[in-house]
Amino acid sequence: MFSFQQLQDKFADSFGQVHFPSLPVSLYEPARYMLSIKGKRIRPVLCLMGNDLFDNIGEDSFRVAAAIELFHNFTLIHDDILDKAPLRRGVPTVHTRFNLPSALLAGDSMLIHAYELINRIDKIYLSRILSIFNKTAIKVCEGQQLDMDFEQMEADNIPMSGYLEMIELKTSVLLAASLKMGAIMGGASERNANHLYEFGKYIGMAFQVQDDLLDAFGDPRKFGKQHGGDILTGKKTFLLLKALELCNPGQKHALLSLMKTDLPDRLEKVMQIYASCEIDKWASREKERFADIALANLDQVAVLSARKHYLLELASILLDRQA
Amino acid sequence: MFSFQQLQDKFADSFGQVHFPSLPVSLYEPARYMLSIKGKRIRPVLCLMGNDLFDNIGEDSFRVAAAIELFHNFTLIHDDILDKAPLRRGVPTVHTRFNLPSALLAGDSMLIHAYELINRIDKIYLSRILSIFNKTAIKVCEGQQLDMDFEQMEADNIPMSGYLEMIELKTSVLLAASLKMGAIMGGASERNANHLYEFGKYIGMAFQVQDDLLDAFGDPRKFGKQHGGDILTGKKTFLLLKALELCNPGQKHALLSLMKTDLPDRLEKVMQIYASCEIDKWASREKERFADIALANLDQVAVLSARKHYLLELASILLDRQA
Repeated sequence: MFSFQQLQDKFADSFGQVHFPSLPVSLYEPARYMLSIKGKRIRPVLCLMGNDLFDNIGEDSFRVAAAIELFHNFTLIHDDILDKAPLRRGVPTVHTRFNLPSALLAGDSMLIHAYELINRIDKIYLSRILSIFNKTAIKVCEGQQLDMDFEQMEADNIPMSGYLEMIELKTSVLLAASLKMGAIMGGASERNANHLYEFGKYIGMAFQVQDDLLDAFGDPRKFGKQHGGDILTGKKTFLLLKALELCNPGQKHALLSLMKTDLPDRLEKVMQIYASCEIDKWASREKERFADIALANLDQVAVLSARKHYLLELASILLDRQA
Repeated sequence: MFSFQQLQDKFADSFGQVHFPSLPVSLYEPARYMLSIKGKRIRPVLCLMGNDLFDNIGEDSFRVAAAIELFHNFTLIHDDILDKAPLRRGVPTVHTRFNLPSALLAGDSMLIHAYELINRIDKIYLSRILSIFNKTAIKVCEGQQLDMDFEQMEADNIPMSGYLEMIELKTSVLLAASLKMGAIMGGASERNANHLYEFGKYIGMAFQVQDDLLDAFGDPRKFGKQHGGDILTGKKTFLLLKALELCNPGQKHALLSLMKTDLPDRLEKVMQIYASCEIDKWASREKERFADIALANLDQVAVLSARKHYLLELASILLDRQA
């Protein structure tokens, strides 16, 4: 069995062999550029780990992992267009470096190439994998649309249940499905694969709460992002929505006004309200609650406990990064 | 066996049963709007005709036909964004009626729904159909990119071979693949299915030449479009590229200048040059040449001649619409 880091390396070797056609240059150059902005590749590695939990990793899991990485990059290219984002990981986004039409088409072609990678797996589980992949891809699109809908709404009109659903669709289901697809190719039963799916889903939810928490309360030197970036850009987060529920009417009014201004003391004032309703304690408990559900599901996966070591290790790395 | 018109009705009945989820409204409303702008639905009907040529039409062909129609509409939504087109068939395009982000995401989700329809067919030919669908989808993206590349180039720098390839990728291969996928689900041999593919491909090429020809030389009352619309919008067509090859240096210089102006006598002057190099005769011959290749391929399909009746009828309707 392999650790997350070892599988990152194995995936990088394998994914380096995936080549787009050379022509038209104007279509595939933006696609290659996007892939050169390498992320942590958590999703494809989760697919490999899902397989590794049950059996030796087969070639098909590398194909599906590559398809997942292409799909994820397709969503990033299109999301950056939708968000008019100029930068990703510190470099120009695809539509900024090239242009909107090329970015849009490069995204489309990456999605289709993902399906062609899936089509190369053993016919025994082609239909089952395709079904999970399609359901997940649809959910990610729906989550992105919900996110855009929420951007247009007043924060106090967004129900926490709707926000949770959006995060689940936009972020968590792809992590969950990556694990499940790997598990199926590793020969997992439907029951085991579903528990692993839930594990991935709730790790994703816990991670998102933590991300929101660290943005406001984390140490910027360790976190590596601007302190209070979410507050300064008026982003709707778990913290904001819960604070609007918890705080008094005067604070609620102040919070809603502060989200729309760019006064220099905006960050400070929002943080005062967050502190007074102890939103950090709530978020820490919420993160632990999600993490507990995740771990309870992993516990239910019927394999030797020792095989779960690397998944537990990954969960602790992902969810304790400030520790 | 059924005529094109009969299968149009059957497809409409079947496709009317394909429903998107109701939520998020903001995602699926644009998708439903796009499908309400009904076209002739040539591509899905070709899929049904491809099946009908060999055997009774099965449910799976209706699924793949629906997937083809969703795919085609996905390309139209995204192409309209790329072309900044305000209207399609006289009504606002999706990004005009809604907005660019919703149009982009609705297109993405239609493509994914197309794949889910394909995943519902019999596993016996799932992988074969998926392979053709993927290859075709990639080619359509490549064709769209080539088209955008050519828009940025001087017309006399575009080789006729490159232009032919662009038309083949952007337009013809989907017609060809629709027939081939239907044929495979009708039990056709690879050889027969490939001849049918070539038939569809060359009918597509002939149709495009005819479309360019009618735009400049057709009777606007019968053709239903503005006379010389391609010339007035400076579009690169078969006629323009061939005229640049055939005419003298003075005419070539004049043509290239005329494409960039919007002088009131632009149409008249271009038509004079087209007439002097008899571009209409060349285009008519070229259309016939493509049609002949198409029919020679249909001739090679090993089924009883009588079964080819409706495909021959369709070819004659598509290619003689001014008659």
